[in-house]
Amino acid sequence: MRNYRLIVEYDGTNYHGFQVQNNHVTIQGCLEAAISEIASEPTRLISAGRTDARVHAYNQVVNFKSNLTVPINKLPVAINQKLPSDIRVKHADLVSLEFNARYEASSKTYLYQICQGEIESVFYRNYAWWIKPTLDVELMRQAGKHLEGTNDFIAFAASGSSVKTTTRTIYDFSLEEKSGKILLSFTADGFLYKMVRNMVGTLVEIGLGKRQADSIPEILLSKNREKAGITAPPQGLFLKNVDYKF
Amino acid sequence: MRNYRLIVEYDGTNYHGFQVQNNHVTIQGCLEAAISEIASEPTRLISAGRTDARVHAYNQVVNFKSNLTVPINKLPVAINQKLPSDIRVKHADLVSLEFNARYEASSKTYLYQICQGEIESVFYRNYAWWIKPTLDVELMRQAGKHLEGTNDFIAFAASGSSVKTTTRTIYDFSLEEKSGKILLSFTADGFLYKMVRNMVGTLVEIGLGKRQADSIPEILLSKNREKAGITAPPQGLFLKNVDYKF
Repeated sequence: MRNYRLIVEYDGTNYHGFQVQNNHVTIQGCLEAAISEIASEPTRLISAGRTDARVHAYNQVVNFKSNLTVPINKLPVAINQKLPSDIRVKHADLVSLEFNARYEASSKTYLYQICQGEIESVFYRNYAWWIKPTLDVELMRQAGKHLEGTNDFIAFAASGSSVKTTTRTIYDFSLEEKSGKILLSFTADGFLYKMVRNMVGTLVEIGLGKRQADSIPEILLSKNREKAGITAPPQGLFLKNVDYKF
Repeated sequence: MRNYRLIVEYDGTNYHGFQVQNNHVTIQGCLEAAISEIASEPTRLISAGRTDARVHAYNQVVNFKSNLTVPINKLPVAINQKLPSDIRVKHADLVSLEFNARYEASSKTYLYQICQGEIESVFYRNYAWWIKPTLDVELMRQAGKHLEGTNDFIAFAASGSSVKTTTRTIYDFSLEEKSGKILLSFTADGFLYKMVRNMVGTLVEIGLGKRQADSIPEILLSKNREKAGITAPPQGLFLKNVDYKF
């Protein structure tokens, strides 16, 4: 039995999220079907993150245990032949049997893309949140810096998730702006359910002048979801990459 | 009766091209349905270019004559409300009754996007031609320069189109390269059927070393379609813009 790690890119537009669900097409479902066929036995995989419906990934990390016989350097092409064109295995390697894509992740980076402009661009309709009024990106950048550090992020978490602790450490927040696009980047040791989208929604309210740039510390201290802003729509969110200690 | 001009952006992925066809969903069909509803009478439109299935446009130009009553500044939003999200009217203005989007066009610019890399990117699968072997872009740039000027381009035209003359003037060819993407740009007084895709296919064969960079003049002189290269796939092609004398 060997432990395989895959780096996977996907366009989440046509999927009900990553995680397998009955009667819905999911990324995990497609990957497991392809791998199970190659391995000639039912194979379950573990992923670093379970992205929601319409959320994308550049470098999702998954692992699965198998006795399959395809050489490791041929595995991405073999799996890709059995996948729809909006999911692609970019890389495969063999890892120690202890490796677990979910529990061993030391940090993750998510990107969130916003598109400005008078009319929504057809080319970004599935890959960005279109916001017509001009955002004050400098205020958003200042506000976002208050999210960095170790905090209880429960005010930015959707209810319904069961986690041991709601404390997380955001190592880095940054905001890049170019040609009508705003790209927000968040790197943390982990994220609560819908935390990135709730932080983005709050930063957008700040960028629209509906909320003060220095209101983030208050929201964190309140530990109250109602104090934070709206949830940004899913299609602007991308899992950029996952880092591991080893 | 007034003459309206619209600037239209579309993602051609899900359409059987621009031009109305029986039993197929087309960009023109969607636009005419939306405008006819607003005008409360059947309305036909004229377009600058009739793009093929899966080809995109940033700034297609169309015109139509109507007595509709929506104010011109409200017209884009009114039409967009009746369009699918992959077609968007970006601008509308009133033009003289003589204006014809097709016959008055003085030049058009098409872009063609190529994506390099070991694995095809899911995010470019509908917007670029994925070519795995590394292309020699310098050879392609040199070769493309031989396409500039006034020439009989019949060797680069698909058969079956009825045009008075197959002579066209390419005012400008350029090639830009950044982060694994190659963007070719062609500006001409007009293009023959599939001419851009046939020029791109030929340039790619040059970039792959399958054909000499200085072979373009010979191909033009041959006036023989069989001397030119393959037809590049449609999804990499974008109608960038259309210029008018007035």
